[in-house]
Amino acid sequence: MAKTWSVVSVVGVGLVGGSFALALRRAGFKGKIIGVSSPDTVKAALAHGVIDEAMPLRDAAGQSDLIYLAQPIERILQTLDEIDPHVYPGTLITDAGSTKSAIVARAAKRIRRGRFIGGHPMAGKQTRGVAEAEAGLFKGRPYILTTPDADLERWIKRMGARVVILDAEEHDRLVALTSHLPQLISTALAASIAAEPGAAQVVGPAAIDLTRLALSPYEIWRDIFSTNRGSIDAALAAFIDRLQDLRKQLQSKAIEKEFERAAAAAKSLRQG
Amino acid sequence: MAKTWSVVSVVGVGLVGGSFALALRRAGFKGKIIGVSSPDTVKAALAHGVIDEAMPLRDAAGQSDLIYLAQPIERILQTLDEIDPHVYPGTLITDAGSTKSAIVARAAKRIRRGRFIGGHPMAGKQTRGVAEAEAGLFKGRPYILTTPDADLERWIKRMGARVVILDAEEHDRLVALTSHLPQLISTALAASIAAEPGAAQVVGPAAIDLTRLALSPYEIWRDIFSTNRGSIDAALAAFIDRLQDLRKQLQSKAIEKEFERAAAAAKSLRQG
Repeated sequence: MAKTWSVVSVVGVGLVGGSFALALRRAGFKGKIIGVSSPDTVKAALAHGVIDEAMPLRDAAGQSDLIYLAQPIERILQTLDEIDPHVYPGTLITDAGSTKSAIVARAAKRIRRGRFIGGHPMAGKQTRGVAEAEAGLFKGRPYILTTPDADLERWIKRMGARVVILDAEEHDRLVALTSHLPQLISTALAASIAAEPGAAQVVGPAAIDLTRLALSPYEIWRDIFSTNRGSIDAALAAFIDRLQDLRKQLQSKAIEKEFERAAAAAKSLRQG
Repeated sequence: MAKTWSVVSVVGVGLVGGSFALALRRAGFKGKIIGVSSPDTVKAALAHGVIDEAMPLRDAAGQSDLIYLAQPIERILQTLDEIDPHVYPGTLITDAGSTKSAIVARAAKRIRRGRFIGGHPMAGKQTRGVAEAEAGLFKGRPYILTTPDADLERWIKRMGARVVILDAEEHDRLVALTSHLPQLISTALAASIAAEPGAAQVVGPAAIDLTRLALSPYEIWRDIFSTNRGSIDAALAAFIDRLQDLRKQLQSKAIEKEFERAAAAAKSLRQG
């Protein structure tokens, strides 16, 4: 197993893949960074100095010490189906998909010559694409890995991220609450306001704030829903229970305690 | 009835009251602006040039053409109980309270010499206090009035706000959805994350975004809940129903349509 990487391939050079390449470079990586993406994306990535070279997946896989899959989830699953025969033994393959169980299960079945570690940087922006990539995207954010790996952890820490080791199922259960539920809440709130004639005319800062996530295009959510349905349904059900409790608390002084608990929690998330 | 105001009193010179004073001045008001507030607030308001003079409520009321009540809701109700004997006939009294039914009902009972019009600027900031006041706070925001008034509407429009005429009950029903529900959702989400061991370690941008409102102190919400309980409960119940629908939609392709509807709505709220 290569302890010093000399070639890294980023497969899917969008916001996250491009940011990983830039962050790796800024963290001191001196080797070659290859990009595997569509012709237009590759062109933009080369123009922005995000990657050093571009080539097809098979050629890139055969010369890489690390292969970083930053595609949509379904594309990651496809890449896992075909990449293994092209890597040399011990090549580290990791990914940046938003759910982990389906990906880790597929890798367990398909990756034999290489070693796979699931990954998920808890970072993003409203805007997408390689032109938005930035070396500091992961800074101060959690970066989940499904298996410890000294080499990979060292680079991620150098990027300023906080490594968190979680197995795939636990990851999916927790992000259902912290990422997927917030998206669905924002979508439901925007739809509720749209369904109420007159509501748009009294919209203030609170509604603007809470409907921002609702702007996200469905295409990035399709795969998340299809690969994390059970945990998302459970998170929604638990949140509905909490809102039912809140209805009762509103009739009494208990609501004040709930506000205090929530404010303390919101504050501590910001100090993380 | 005075068609040209020469003296305006702002009662409660915090973020909203102070911003009203600054906005009125910038909109071209040449008369005197009196502040009625606690000694510390009055001192800060004078130091920041927000008001011209400070005096007790009774003295201010007796010489004002417009009295602007920007206190917490319970304090507005108390002011309405005592102010009327001190105003001259026809003095316009308006307020900036976040709920309108209780205030308009109290005014109907107590205001005889003056004329009362309920008001609610849909504007605010995370931070409070007169030091945060700004002339542009209402710009581009809805400003609800419970009764039309040519004079008042003209000044509000000059401040850059959009006047919306709504009766008090309709206002309270709509803001339960657009302001009070978002707050409760954010509070419930922060409490949910706090209750789940491990969740804090995977918090990303979505959860940070949706728990921002949860930082609001309960003290500004106490009066809102006590004066709009019915509409808030109905908004919560309807939102719970929508989340239940979402659970079903997640099992099918219907969720895509919901995302499209919500994204279109969220976009249009931003173009308002």
